[in-house]
Amino acid sequence: MSEVPSNEFQRRSGEINDLLCILNLLNWDARTQMPPGGGSVRSQQLATLSALAREKLLDPAYQVAAQTVSGDDIQIRAARQALDAISAMRRVPDRLTRELALLRSEAQDIWAAAKANNDFAAFAPALTRMVALNRQLAEALGYEGHPYDALQNLYEPGLTVATLLPLLTRLRTHHVPLLRAIQAQPQPRTDFLTRHYPADRQRAVSLAAAERFGYDMGRGRLDESAHPFEISLNCADVRITTRIQEAYLPGALFGTLHETGHALYEQGVSPALSRTVLTSDLTGLYAVGGASYGTHESQSRLWENRIGRSAAYWALHFRELQAAFPDQLSDVDAATFHRAVNRVQPSLIRVEADELTYDLHIMLRVDLEMRLMTGELEVQGLPAAWNARIREDLGLEVPDDAHGVLQDIHWSAGLFGSFPTYTIGNVMASQFYAAANRAVPELSAQLERGEYGPLREWLTDNIYQHGRTFAPHELLERTTGGGLDPQPYLEYLSGKYTELYGLRADVIKRVFL
Amino acid sequence: MSEVPSNEFQRRSGEINDLLCILNLLNWDARTQMPPGGGSVRSQQLATLSALAREKLLDPAYQVAAQTVSGDDIQIRAARQALDAISAMRRVPDRLTRELALLRSEAQDIWAAAKANNDFAAFAPALTRMVALNRQLAEALGYEGHPYDALQNLYEPGLTVATLLPLLTRLRTHHVPLLRAIQAQPQPRTDFLTRHYPADRQRAVSLAAAERFGYDMGRGRLDESAHPFEISLNCADVRITTRIQEAYLPGALFGTLHETGHALYEQGVSPALSRTVLTSDLTGLYAVGGASYGTHESQSRLWENRIGRSAAYWALHFRELQAAFPDQLSDVDAATFHRAVNRVQPSLIRVEADELTYDLHIMLRVDLEMRLMTGELEVQGLPAAWNARIREDLGLEVPDDAHGVLQDIHWSAGLFGSFPTYTIGNVMASQFYAAANRAVPELSAQLERGEYGPLREWLTDNIYQHGRTFAPHELLERTTGGGLDPQPYLEYLSGKYTELYGLRADVIKRVFL
Repeated sequence: MSEVPSNEFQRRSGEINDLLCILNLLNWDARTQMPPGGGSVRSQQLATLSALAREKLLDPAYQVAAQTVSGDDIQIRAARQALDAISAMRRVPDRLTRELALLRSEAQDIWAAAKANNDFAAFAPALTRMVALNRQLAEALGYEGHPYDALQNLYEPGLTVATLLPLLTRLRTHHVPLLRAIQAQPQPRTDFLTRHYPADRQRAVSLAAAERFGYDMGRGRLDESAHPFEISLNCADVRITTRIQEAYLPGALFGTLHETGHALYEQGVSPALSRTVLTSDLTGLYAVGGASYGTHESQSRLWENRIGRSAAYWALHFRELQAAFPDQLSDVDAATFHRAVNRVQPSLIRVEADELTYDLHIMLRVDLEMRLMTGELEVQGLPAAWNARIREDLGLEVPDDAHGVLQDIHWSAGLFGSFPTYTIGNVMASQFYAAANRAVPELSAQLERGEYGPLREWLTDNIYQHGRTFAPHELLERTTGGGLDPQPYLEYLSGKYTELYGLRADVIKRVFL
Repeated sequence: MSEVPSNEFQRRSGEINDLLCILNLLNWDARTQMPPGGGSVRSQQLATLSALAREKLLDPAYQVAAQTVSGDDIQIRAARQALDAISAMRRVPDRLTRELALLRSEAQDIWAAAKANNDFAAFAPALTRMVALNRQLAEALGYEGHPYDALQNLYEPGLTVATLLPLLTRLRTHHVPLLRAIQAQPQPRTDFLTRHYPADRQRAVSLAAAERFGYDMGRGRLDESAHPFEISLNCADVRITTRIQEAYLPGALFGTLHETGHALYEQGVSPALSRTVLTSDLTGLYAVGGASYGTHESQSRLWENRIGRSAAYWALHFRELQAAFPDQLSDVDAATFHRAVNRVQPSLIRVEADELTYDLHIMLRVDLEMRLMTGELEVQGLPAAWNARIREDLGLEVPDDAHGVLQDIHWSAGLFGSFPTYTIGNVMASQFYAAANRAVPELSAQLERGEYGPLREWLTDNIYQHGRTFAPHELLERTTGGGLDPQPYLEYLSGKYTELYGLRADVIKRVFL
C-alpha cells in the first residue's frame, strides 16, 4: 500500500466534506429561500447527493487511504474517525439506508398532516414502521448494553443507557421538588411579553444581540424560518435563522441567542480543519462542526441561558431593548424583565418550556423511546403513556395529541436517540461554564461589564477550535478533569430559582442536592 | 448489452441533472446570499461537484445505457444528445479541463483587479493564456470550417462562421446608416430617468412587472445581485435577480423584464422533462433550460424589448409607474416615457447600450475574438483594435481600458464564442414574434389590452415546453418554416425608429433594407 500518496486521505476527505456541506446548503435553501414549487425535485437532489457521499465514504480506496495515514496525533485521529465511520456505515445494509431515507421523507409529511388534523391514528402506521427500522438500525450498528445505546451514539459518541439513566434520575430527583416549591410561590408578571412587537425591530434587536456575543456577520447571516436553526457550510459560512412572532417578544430574541451559541462554536472551529474529517460527521448526520450534539447544545444553552437570561445581562442591556420598544416596555424595568423571561411554568410544549421543566420533557421522551426500542411499549400505547407522564410530572392534562405525542418532528424524521443530547447539553454547559470561571477568575466581572470576548475566547481555545478532534468525554476531561457531572448544573438551577422566587436557600440545598 | 435495464439511462441522466442543478444553486447562493467569508471553500465545493458531474457523464456505463435506448422520438433524441455530450467531453483532455477551470477562477480575480485599476497590462498574461487554452479547446473539440465554430457551437449548436458573418454584415449595413440618420434628428428628453427612485418601490414595481408577464412566484423568487441573472434549479424553481440603482430607473425595471423573459422560458419547460437530458446541457455550460444561448436570449429580448419597450405597453402601464413615483414622474406622460426608454445614443458600455447600437458592440467583440483564435491578432494589440473600432462605429473615444477592452467579464471567464448569441437572440426574437403574430392574428389587439397570456402560451407551446428537445434551427423551422433570417428584426428596428425619430419612412426602406 506504499504507493498510496500521503495526501490521498486528505483529498478524499475533502471531497466527502464538500458533499456534506453542499447537502447543508440544499437544506438551508429549502427552509429559507426555495419557492414552494421546488420541493419535489429538491428531494431527489438531496437523495442523489446523499447517495454519492455514502458511495465516496464506502469506496474501498478511501479505507485504504485512511489505513495508511501516519503523522501527528491530529492526523491519526482523523483517520481513526474515518475508519470508525466507514465501519459503522458498512454495518448498515444498503437496503436499510434506502428504506430509512424514503420513510423519513414520507413520514414527515404524514406526521405534519396528522398533527394538523390532531389524528394520531393517521401517523401510527408510519411511526410503527419507523420504530421497526430504528430497531433494525440498532441491531445493525451493534451495541453492548441496550439497543438504545446504538442509536444515541449516533448523536453522542460514548453515551450509554448505563450512564444516562442515573444522570436523569438525579436531575428528576432535583427538578420535581424544586418545581413544586416554585409553584407554591407568587409568579412574576409576564403580561408585557405578549404586547405587539413589530417584526423589523425584533429582527434588528436579535441581530444586534447575536453580534454582541461575537457572531461574525462577515462569515454568517440571519434569516427567518418556521423552526429556528443553525447550519454551517464551513467555518467561514455559518448561518442562523430565527422565528419572529409579533405577539411574543422572547421567541425571536432567545431563539437567536440559542442559535448564536451554535454559531459561535462553528465559527470558532480552526480554519486548519476545513474540509477535513475533523469538521464533519462522515455518517452525514451533521456536516460540519463540533464533538457531538450534546457538546453543541451545551454552547447554545450556555449563551442563551447562562448569559442571555442572567441578571447581569439584563441589567446592562435592558435599556437598549426598551429604546427599541419604548411604548411596549414603558412600565417595565430590568429586574422585572429578567424575572419574566425566567418564569417557571409547566407547559405542554417542549420548545416553549422554561429551563427547569425542559428536562422533564426530555426525560419523558427518552423513557418512551427506550421502551419503544425494547418492545416494552407499542406505538398504539404511546398517547396514553405520554399523557399519564405529563399529568404526573407537570400536573397538566393533555387536551389533544397535537399538544402531546404529535408535537415533535423527531420521530417522523427517524431521530430516535437524539433527545438525550438536549439534557446532556444543559449538564455540559454548566460544567464548561464552571471550568471557564475557574480558569479565568475575572470572568464574572467581565460579563457584568458586557465583555463577552474573554468567555468566547476561552471556549474557542478549549472547545470550539478543536472541531471534532476530541470526543465529548475528552473535552470534559481536558477542561474539568472529570466526566459528565450534573452537580454544577443543579447548583446553577437551585441558586437561580432560589433567588428569583425567594425560596429558602437552606431548605433547597438540604432537600434537593 | 441486453441486460441493461431500460430505465438505466433515465436514472443516470437524472443523477447528472441533479448535480448540474445543485451547481446552479451553489452559484446562485454565492451571488445572492453567501457571506463574504464563504468564497474560498465554495470554490472547492464547486470544483468537487463539477468533477463528479464530469465523472458521471464519462462513466462508460452511461454511454452503454445511452446506446441501448429505444423508444419514441423524444427518448431517441435524449440518448443522441447524451452521446454527443459524452463524445465532446471525451475529446477534451482531463488536463485541459482542469487547466481551464483553474484559469477561469484565477483570471476573473485578475480581471476584476485590472478593471478596477484600469491596468490592461496586468490582465494581459492571463488573457494570453486563456486565448491559448481556448485555441487548444477548439482543436480538441474539432471543427470543419473555422476554429471559432468549435467554440460558438458550445453555446449555439450548429452556428458557423460561414452563417454568422454574412448575417452580421447584413445587420451592420443596416444599423450604421440608421444610426447616422437617428443622430441627425433631435433627441428625446431623458432627464427624469435619473431622478431619485427609492429602492423599495423599484423592487415592488419590478416584481409586479415580472408577474404581469406571467412569472410564477410560486416557482420563483426575485433577489438582488451586482449583475442581474436568471438561474434554474428545475422548472419549478426558477430564480431571477435584478440590480437596483436609485439614481437610474430603467436599470432594475428593464433588467427585471429581461430576466423574466429567461424565466418564462424555464418555467415553461414541460415538467415531464424534469431531470432528463432534455433540460440540461450535459457539458455543464448551462444546467437547465432551452435549446441554446441564442434561443434563450431571444426570449429575454422579446419580453424586454418587443413588449416591455413598446408604445402599447407604456400606454397601458405608465399610469401605474407614475402612481409608484408621483413626484419623480409628475412632469412626464406615457409617450414621453416611451421615447425616453428607447433613446438611441452611442455609448462605451455594452450592457448600457440601446437596442440599435447593442449589435455593434457584439460585432466588435466577435471580430476580435475570431482574430484572436486564428492568431491574426495578439493580446497586446487588443486595446488599440478595440478603440479604433469604437471610434469607427460609434464615433466615440475610449478614455481608458476600463471603459473599453476590460469592460466585460466574458474573456476572463473563458466564454469565447458566446458573444454572437446575443445578436442571434435579437434576430430570433423577431422571427418568433412574427411567427406568433401569423399564428394568432388577434395577438396585437390582445397585447394592446395588456393580455400577455396568449403570447406566452404560444411561446410555451412552440418553444418553452420542449426544453432542449429541438435544436435552434429545428425550432425556427417548425415555427417559421425557414432558418435564421434577419429580415423581421431589421423591419422591426427600422419601423420603430422611423416612428420614434420621425425619419422619412420611404428613404429608410429604400436605403437600408
